[in-house]
Amino acid sequence: MTTLSPTPRSTVHRGKNRAVADREALYRVLDAGLICHLAFVANDAPVVIPTGYGRDGDTLYVHGSTGARSLRIAAAGVEVCVNVTLLDGVVYGRSVFHNSVNYRSAVIHGRAMEITDPAAKLRGLRVLTEHLAPGSWDYAREPSAKEVAKTAVLALDLDESAVKIRSGPPGDEESDVEADAVWAGVLPLRQEWGAPEPCPLIGTPRAVPRHVAQRSR
Amino acid sequence: MTTLSPTPRSTVHRGKNRAVADREALYRVLDAGLICHLAFVANDAPVVIPTGYGRDGDTLYVHGSTGARSLRIAAAGVEVCVNVTLLDGVVYGRSVFHNSVNYRSAVIHGRAMEITDPAAKLRGLRVLTEHLAPGSWDYAREPSAKEVAKTAVLALDLDESAVKIRSGPPGDEESDVEADAVWAGVLPLRQEWGAPEPCPLIGTPRAVPRHVAQRSR
Repeated sequence: MTTLSPTPRSTVHRGKNRAVADREALYRVLDAGLICHLAFVANDAPVVIPTGYGRDGDTLYVHGSTGARSLRIAAAGVEVCVNVTLLDGVVYGRSVFHNSVNYRSAVIHGRAMEITDPAAKLRGLRVLTEHLAPGSWDYAREPSAKEVAKTAVLALDLDESAVKIRSGPPGDEESDVEADAVWAGVLPLRQEWGAPEPCPLIGTPRAVPRHVAQRSR
Repeated sequence: MTTLSPTPRSTVHRGKNRAVADREALYRVLDAGLICHLAFVANDAPVVIPTGYGRDGDTLYVHGSTGARSLRIAAAGVEVCVNVTLLDGVVYGRSVFHNSVNYRSAVIHGRAMEITDPAAKLRGLRVLTEHLAPGSWDYAREPSAKEVAKTAVLALDLDESAVKIRSGPPGDEESDVEADAVWAGVLPLRQEWGAPEPCPLIGTPRAVPRHVAQRSR
């Protein structure tokens, strides 16, 4: 197990028993998520936006349109914070105070660097594409130089990261457990893919490709 | 339709055609989500954390432990930004450039106020509880004065808010549509509740209550 190096900011201050200081756990959370929440400071005020991301080793790529104000600010090398949270269930306690959620959450602090080298940028775009839609890069048309230019790719190092996980039944008060007056437990939450919906502009009827029809993650 | 009053910060700068300036749409997104992402500035750097929330009219309640650094900072009346995003599907374009996601997203800017009046705080806690676990407040034990004291409840006005929604098929280039070379469409994503998992410490076997067993949202 590789231990994440916690800094004052990435140290989990609450629920230390939930902190899993393990790089593999970080990778698992990041690889299981679909979108991240990216926070930065604009005009002295916090801004948080949902956006696509992808991981390559210890680099997290975040992307967006070069026209988006948020990406222009984040690309300027300011400090950002990224969170990826997966909700696994709602925890019903014997008291409402012990209601909770089961979740896996990763937080990353750092300075995002904009990737400008064309080959490196294309590599980043491939990582981003394959994270959101595995199998797409080899199947669909690759981006043109103009399209690459329209996209901003930011890279963020995973050095300053933390993972927090909660699982299992409620942590109720002993007196409530002894009273045994109500049901308590977990209602699990799952994300499931529905049936693929073909674009109405498809001319010739075409089978749904394997990477879409049999998508697992 | 009530139109949200956009400010420079809450004006949607990208994809104006996706902006639904409608308070009802804001309510629908907030009421459909389970957790929010709360961003604030600490030591000049952005921080974003996932946390529970609930809506009562035009007030958003956010809660957490009074011992959590994040809530202590956010409760001090600094500017915060809250985002609630629901992912509805992955959009597969004919080119990877037009890969996208279908989503509903709400963003709120403002100053969070800590609720200290006991009756108002209890009301806020009820809203938070009923958002995360509808039916719990009347079923499980209500919080004791000590438990109420341990919980911080923040209130945020919905005045400065924006909603952004994307739905439907990919917005591909005309040339790619005409080429008709590959499948394109949407793979819908759904959140579904699994089978309730009773707490192993339940003494007397007990039916899963209706508000858990038949939970819809």
